[in-house]
Amino acid sequence: MEVKIGIAPEKAIEGVGRPTDVAVGPLRDQVAQAVVRGGGRVVPVQEAEGLVWLLPGGPEPLLDALDAHPSIRWVQLPWAGVEHFKDAFTRPQTFTCAKGSFAKQVSEHALMLALACLRDLVRHARTPEWRPIDPRSLGGLSVTILGGGGIATELVALLQPFGCRIRVLRRSASPLPGADETLPVSELHAVLPTTDVLVVALALTPQTRHIVGAPELALLPPGAVLVNVARGPHVDTDALLTALDAGNLAAAGLDVTDPEPLPAGHPLWAHDRVLITSHCADSSEYVARMLCERVAENVRRFGAGEELDGLVDAEAGY
Amino acid sequence: MEVKIGIAPEKAIEGVGRPTDVAVGPLRDQVAQAVVRGGGRVVPVQEAEGLVWLLPGGPEPLLDALDAHPSIRWVQLPWAGVEHFKDAFTRPQTFTCAKGSFAKQVSEHALMLALACLRDLVRHARTPEWRPIDPRSLGGLSVTILGGGGIATELVALLQPFGCRIRVLRRSASPLPGADETLPVSELHAVLPTTDVLVVALALTPQTRHIVGAPELALLPPGAVLVNVARGPHVDTDALLTALDAGNLAAAGLDVTDPEPLPAGHPLWAHDRVLITSHCADSSEYVARMLCERVAENVRRFGAGEELDGLVDAEAGY
Repeated sequence: MEVKIGIAPEKAIEGVGRPTDVAVGPLRDQVAQAVVRGGGRVVPVQEAEGLVWLLPGGPEPLLDALDAHPSIRWVQLPWAGVEHFKDAFTRPQTFTCAKGSFAKQVSEHALMLALACLRDLVRHARTPEWRPIDPRSLGGLSVTILGGGGIATELVALLQPFGCRIRVLRRSASPLPGADETLPVSELHAVLPTTDVLVVALALTPQTRHIVGAPELALLPPGAVLVNVARGPHVDTDALLTALDAGNLAAAGLDVTDPEPLPAGHPLWAHDRVLITSHCADSSEYVARMLCERVAENVRRFGAGEELDGLVDAEAGY
Repeated sequence: MEVKIGIAPEKAIEGVGRPTDVAVGPLRDQVAQAVVRGGGRVVPVQEAEGLVWLLPGGPEPLLDALDAHPSIRWVQLPWAGVEHFKDAFTRPQTFTCAKGSFAKQVSEHALMLALACLRDLVRHARTPEWRPIDPRSLGGLSVTILGGGGIATELVALLQPFGCRIRVLRRSASPLPGADETLPVSELHAVLPTTDVLVVALALTPQTRHIVGAPELALLPPGAVLVNVARGPHVDTDALLTALDAGNLAAAGLDVTDPEPLPAGHPLWAHDRVLITSHCADSSEYVARMLCERVAENVRRFGAGEELDGLVDAEAGY
């Protein structure tokens, strides 16, 4: 059966610059083609059973649309992290997001940040003269990944040839393939003293905000490095600066910051052991392509009555 | 049979700073222990059958030692690349070097440089304000490795999970495990137009000097990046600058340069698509440890009459 899918906004709008936003202009046409590929028909929102949401910003316009158009039973959101849409998840509709979709590019970025931290890339890049700095190898180190979703899955694969000891901390009890240990997040403090590289790659919820703060940074061994490719508020920025200045943390690689965007003049910018990459672990071309794959697949599943991919767990908030 | 091994210099000397040099001070004692582990006895050079050479600089003192002490039948050199000792290789003694020994750390560095080039790390590191830059993924790209020795072997292993198309160009005809294609170096021009990442990881000889020059850089496709973890003179520096300025090369990651050390004020330092890491792909601790492993193993083989590891091919020059 051909399912009826709306796309919001109904007309293309331009002017979205950040790769982690959704570039609504050209993307809208690509998404419309993905809907058709999945066996759907693009219809006005008032006739839709499913709705692909592409509007940047907060959830209010979506809540209004759901109120106005009760035929909508399923909403596909375009982001991997949907913490800013949590007010929508109490509604009776089914919500899916893009979690896992962008994980390959983000895990590659995480690996690069870890290597760059261990090999002092910021100092190399900022020093316009010959100055050897002894590198540290990732090979054989102990890597702890906070989060057991798509990024962790892909990062574990990339780490395999390095011979690292890999621990994954996740909500689910099922072991993540390739990890040496899969533990509950409550074990974080227990594993930090033997963690050389701590990678933050989990969803932002009220429970995971500041999951890396002063107590956690104090538990890391000398020489440890921190990588954050999830959301800025996972890390307590003040505690991070204190740990860096005190030498308790060797380096940090941050694709995300709190506040974000990080304002000019913030002390993190000047730190020669901090690499900041302005939330661009994934490219807009890649995000668009992977989102369209998910849309096509979920339209197909919606039509076939199958379970959708990237289902948001309303209680967990991601 | 306990073999008699000399170590030069006979007394520890201090004051060697570069990780790629050999830190003779504490290292001499470690090497002496490795000789014993391998079943040898450390003797004065005039009594030695084998000689572990730890003196930085050129080959002249070694040639003098060989002239003065005809009992020496084998010389272990401490470097992976021995182009500066080629005048010694016409002598009748057997020469071994450390080729392959340091490959794990160097291949990790090469991977980091490739990722850093593709993800614009220099601009990120040098820009103290929020500025997203669309990244490029290594995943799925076409990687050509010039050289089929230890670094190539280890780098191919690290690249496996990325799903790259990997081509290795080497002197030997035997396929390098994990590479999609192993080709003779003479095929370089044929593969460059479909090479996204060109990694230089071969020995420096008169034949491989400037193996990457203006014609080679012109054959690379738009967006290609260059990584050099071998020796500076493999790449024609003037041609590299021209290609970067013309936009024919997207970025370069250089652990080695020509001239080296690269003088302050050289235009490569100012280029925001060039990352220079001052010849420190491997650490002095790692170099010492791996060299001692090779010494112990080769002393054992020398005593047992087995073929030595890291044999220098006098004709090839490495």
